[in-house]
Amino acid sequence: MNYKMVGRFIAQILTIETLFMIPAFIISLAFNETNAIRGFLYALFILVSADIVLFQLCRGAPSAFYAKEGFVCVSLGWIALSIAGCLPFWLSGEIPSFIDAMFEIVSGFTTTGASILTDVEAMSKGNLYWRSFSHWLGGMGVLVFLLAFSSTSEKGKGFTMHLLRAESPGPNITKIVPRMKKTAAILYLLYIILTIINFLFLIAGKMPVFDALCTTFGTAGTGGFGIRNDSMASYSPYLQNVTTVFMLLFGVNFSCYYLLILREFRAVFKDEELRLYICIVVASIALICWNILGSFATQEETLRHAAFQVASIITTTGYATTDFDLWPSFSKSILLCLMVVGACAGSTGGGLKCGRLLLLLKNLFRNMKQLVHPRRVIVVKNNGQPISEKVMDNTNAYLSAYVVLIILSFLLISLDGYSIETNVSAVVSCFNNIGPGFDTVGPTCNFSSFSPRATVILTFDMLAGRLEIFPVLLLFSRNTWRRR
Amino acid sequence: MNYKMVGRFIAQILTIETLFMIPAFIISLAFNETNAIRGFLYALFILVSADIVLFQLCRGAPSAFYAKEGFVCVSLGWIALSIAGCLPFWLSGEIPSFIDAMFEIVSGFTTTGASILTDVEAMSKGNLYWRSFSHWLGGMGVLVFLLAFSSTSEKGKGFTMHLLRAESPGPNITKIVPRMKKTAAILYLLYIILTIINFLFLIAGKMPVFDALCTTFGTAGTGGFGIRNDSMASYSPYLQNVTTVFMLLFGVNFSCYYLLILREFRAVFKDEELRLYICIVVASIALICWNILGSFATQEETLRHAAFQVASIITTTGYATTDFDLWPSFSKSILLCLMVVGACAGSTGGGLKCGRLLLLLKNLFRNMKQLVHPRRVIVVKNNGQPISEKVMDNTNAYLSAYVVLIILSFLLISLDGYSIETNVSAVVSCFNNIGPGFDTVGPTCNFSSFSPRATVILTFDMLAGRLEIFPVLLLFSRNTWRRR
Repeated sequence: MNYKMVGRFIAQILTIETLFMIPAFIISLAFNETNAIRGFLYALFILVSADIVLFQLCRGAPSAFYAKEGFVCVSLGWIALSIAGCLPFWLSGEIPSFIDAMFEIVSGFTTTGASILTDVEAMSKGNLYWRSFSHWLGGMGVLVFLLAFSSTSEKGKGFTMHLLRAESPGPNITKIVPRMKKTAAILYLLYIILTIINFLFLIAGKMPVFDALCTTFGTAGTGGFGIRNDSMASYSPYLQNVTTVFMLLFGVNFSCYYLLILREFRAVFKDEELRLYICIVVASIALICWNILGSFATQEETLRHAAFQVASIITTTGYATTDFDLWPSFSKSILLCLMVVGACAGSTGGGLKCGRLLLLLKNLFRNMKQLVHPRRVIVVKNNGQPISEKVMDNTNAYLSAYVVLIILSFLLISLDGYSIETNVSAVVSCFNNIGPGFDTVGPTCNFSSFSPRATVILTFDMLAGRLEIFPVLLLFSRNTWRRR
Repeated sequence: MNYKMVGRFIAQILTIETLFMIPAFIISLAFNETNAIRGFLYALFILVSADIVLFQLCRGAPSAFYAKEGFVCVSLGWIALSIAGCLPFWLSGEIPSFIDAMFEIVSGFTTTGASILTDVEAMSKGNLYWRSFSHWLGGMGVLVFLLAFSSTSEKGKGFTMHLLRAESPGPNITKIVPRMKKTAAILYLLYIILTIINFLFLIAGKMPVFDALCTTFGTAGTGGFGIRNDSMASYSPYLQNVTTVFMLLFGVNFSCYYLLILREFRAVFKDEELRLYICIVVASIALICWNILGSFATQEETLRHAAFQVASIITTTGYATTDFDLWPSFSKSILLCLMVVGACAGSTGGGLKCGRLLLLLKNLFRNMKQLVHPRRVIVVKNNGQPISEKVMDNTNAYLSAYVVLIILSFLLISLDGYSIETNVSAVVSCFNNIGPGFDTVGPTCNFSSFSPRATVILTFDMLAGRLEIFPVLLLFSRNTWRRR
């Protein structure tokens, strides 16, 4: 393990965070929010000091990097990002407990959207902005941002690839263009353009600018922090529908958009993951509409709420326009399954990912064929390309890790004594970065009733889910910390 | 597909079933139960007729067998066994609905122990005996029985291996001795001896002979059908403790007992699966004792109930001495996890199996190491022996199939509108052949409230779980039915 290298990397991340915290600080100044101003001032002071110390300590770090350093940089980078990010909440006194503040910002950066706040509207504008903005930054990834726009980071040849692989969601990373730095830049450019379009559509629907800004951040990062206590329920049907569409769009693999710009429509149309994603969304909306028929006054309303909730859950955003905890069992079960499935690989959404599900199903069918024809060689293919055994094996191991971690977390938080429905949905929701669950953590409730122990475990789950488990698990391996 | 071969095979299974049904018929005669006598007479008549027809139709079946035929024989054999087995319940009128009767006998043969009966004690002795005996026959497997004791079955060389592999639980089958026929015979012999010892221990505790017989069948097959409405709650502590010990013993891989007879104590002591099994059992009992402390009058009672429930659930038996649905959330969560884990491979218990869990965990650790050292070749080992990629791949595919089937069943039965807790635990319980679940299907309740649709799905789950998914899934593949 090369400590200096990791230290310098964390310093770079903190620099970016400092820069992005300044707009939130300005908003606090504009609205003259005394506590928030104090919080941001202290936080910025601590951040800048830590930055200077780290850069000084880690001067002369070597530039030969291995996979190990990549993973450690990602996990420790995210932990540093979160500790620094929760300072404004904590130091302003708006979230008095450090553990709660940490849960809130990790929920933000991991684009979960689960909250321990019982009254969101009581929060200062500056902190609300920072809370929503954390979704946007975490959605595409802060390391990808660093890679795309900093000149110093592309040193080690394999390093950037390792970074992107560790932070980007999905079973295998698509290189849009040969150079990783350029790939990262294109991804962020597409992300910024889509974000702006979403913002303009909301403004066109007469949403206040501050609301539109925060809602767009939450949609783009598929995060789901609302700035009203009823999430999106009190906005107009137009605004809800716009959000439905954009949530779904941000759940698509971004390389599809790049292909669209290159006018390769055929490749997009034939993308198997995209097809599966669309099928699941359409089928879920249809089944839920059928199941909740009669709960709402009009068919338009039924469709709007069903579509919104499906889009919100499968993309792991977590906004709500209605209390789906009151829906019939079948609809709730569909939503619970969508929580596990998640959006497409290479999007800002969380979950297991449609692409990974596809690989697992294909491997299952291959195995069944293999049982009948023990001697035939059968290869798993994706979009016509054979999948390497390594990717397949890694996907399988991912599923095991996923199941094991969910079971362990479920056991530990059940010590708080809530219902099995609460515990299962809370863990699945946090692990897949969704936000709301059922029962005690339903869409009209929040995570404030959990004990500090459970809060810490759920915070860990959110991080592990966002970084796709392995980088976080590797932190606990002795092997990782051995010096060369 | 060679239809004649499959037909002859099913005829052989029906012959065995006819023979085993006769003792139940005699018991009905002895107790002079009019309805049950009529039911058994009709059933035996139908069975014998079907047998004669099948043997006539399938004369001259070839003896060259492939993997495909093996799997189809197993699934269709089990389906035929179940249809024939439910006839006494249905024709005697004691279970008026055919779907319910089918659920009950499948629950018996698959050693699940879930029941749709609201009043077990109202059933005739003959049918109660048949119901409990189905556990014993299903536990070690009716095809294994056929293999062990019929002279006609060992024709195709690979066929017996395929059969045993398809019906026996666990990721890879241990050949105790080179010849499969002899292996099957040894397994059954050990099974019979352990069953007799269990019976004698119960008799020594002054249990009535009929009760002891039925309880032993349920324990040996890790089935769990009680013959009293309160399962095992009203029996003496001695009888409960004896049952605890024997449930755990029947959850151990039977090849361990063979090794014990051969005095290879070292091999048994070093068996990694056995160690994991013991660790999980001890840890679960300790944690539950700590969690439920104070619910019972004495420490002895606490320990007895905790140990009984843990043994009952991990071995997938399903007896109960107390209503564990009333236990605190943490204890219930532990039991839910034990439902998934299950007993050892090569035992009569169901579930994912400790051995498979071990392989999945080892593969997970290998993948983590591989991420840090991308170029090193790392092999998964079990008891010091390297595991072939094929077994590993199959184990991974098994986990996928397991997760997918559980999610689909969960969705479908949630149409009945019960709570998520009920639906999750019912599906997990049936799929892993346990018996009781929580809430509406808790230990003091039963499965009678489900709709016929849900009952059919749960019946399918029990079969799929018992036959370890693939043989059942292959029935739905067009490939399987193609003639050569």
